[in-house]
Amino acid sequence: MSFGEKTIKKTNIFDGKVIKLDLHEVLLENGKTAEREIISHPGGVAVIPINEKDEIYFVKQYRKPYDTEVLEIPAGKLERGEEPELCGVRELREETGLTASKVTFITEAYPTPGYTNERLFLYMAEGLTEGESDVDEDEFLNVHKYSLNEAIDMIKSGEIRDAKTIIAILYVKLLKS
Amino acid sequence: MSFGEKTIKKTNIFDGKVIKLDLHEVLLENGKTAEREIISHPGGVAVIPINEKDEIYFVKQYRKPYDTEVLEIPAGKLERGEEPELCGVRELREETGLTASKVTFITEAYPTPGYTNERLFLYMAEGLTEGESDVDEDEFLNVHKYSLNEAIDMIKSGEIRDAKTIIAILYVKLLKS
Repeated sequence: MSFGEKTIKKTNIFDGKVIKLDLHEVLLENGKTAEREIISHPGGVAVIPINEKDEIYFVKQYRKPYDTEVLEIPAGKLERGEEPELCGVRELREETGLTASKVTFITEAYPTPGYTNERLFLYMAEGLTEGESDVDEDEFLNVHKYSLNEAIDMIKSGEIRDAKTIIAILYVKLLKS
Repeated sequence: MSFGEKTIKKTNIFDGKVIKLDLHEVLLENGKTAEREIISHPGGVAVIPINEKDEIYFVKQYRKPYDTEVLEIPAGKLERGEEPELCGVRELREETGLTASKVTFITEAYPTPGYTNERLFLYMAEGLTEGESDVDEDEFLNVHKYSLNEAIDMIKSGEIRDAKTIIAILYVKLLKS
């Protein structure tokens, strides 16, 4: 059996620089109606940069929603019409200074499908060359490097909590096992 | 070096049943200010139920933000003051009818730290007994069962895209390798 929810009425609540919030009144399978609070997001791209020694580059940056610094793989928002892989290559260079000779698509992930439509495209970057980073004016971050096995331990210990980062590390570990 | 962003002014835009949206004017490291669009969420719990034949139970449900059905492990929102493991056990039983003799904490994940403060608690459920499901009045879903290796293939093929589901499958695969 297949399900769906048709929008009867849509009300825009907020249209910001990063997200948009709409309230949908929807028709359910049982004929009743319900309200859905839905965030629209332009989509994101994340890149796991891994060198020939199986070391991964991370960025650590303050994330206001958690009021703490979070260790993540390089990532960014898609700009309008931007091709995901090019966005990933751009964010990788801006945030870490790295360029890659080989970029491989890993998967597309839905971060939290209950209330956001964000699509997150994940890539692996190999054949790395270090260079100068070039972060946005209002971005402040530090670059860190850990081995793949250290990163696995940091997932187990809870030091790495960012979902896209966990997915990328576990996926690369699976590929290399 | 450690970074932070102090809120100078906070404006509530929306306070809904699932999410809350606040606009924060923050002070940056360089003395400038910026706006942060921040979603508050009560937190979520997801449980990967895996039986002695290494088969995993999934629920497939329509997700309005993607306007399609999404294959996920059983999950739900934390109710106020609810202990995450108990929430997981409750959602598992409600959505699939399963009860578990052993529930193990996997990790806590941040689904998309750029704009939401959601904390997602992940558990593995073993020693499963099938029973009657008892879904919420406005929840419509189907239960599916795939082997761990089928699930890995479905991540690789893009059939499984839900972030918490990918994390749980890859984590269990790592544990059992």
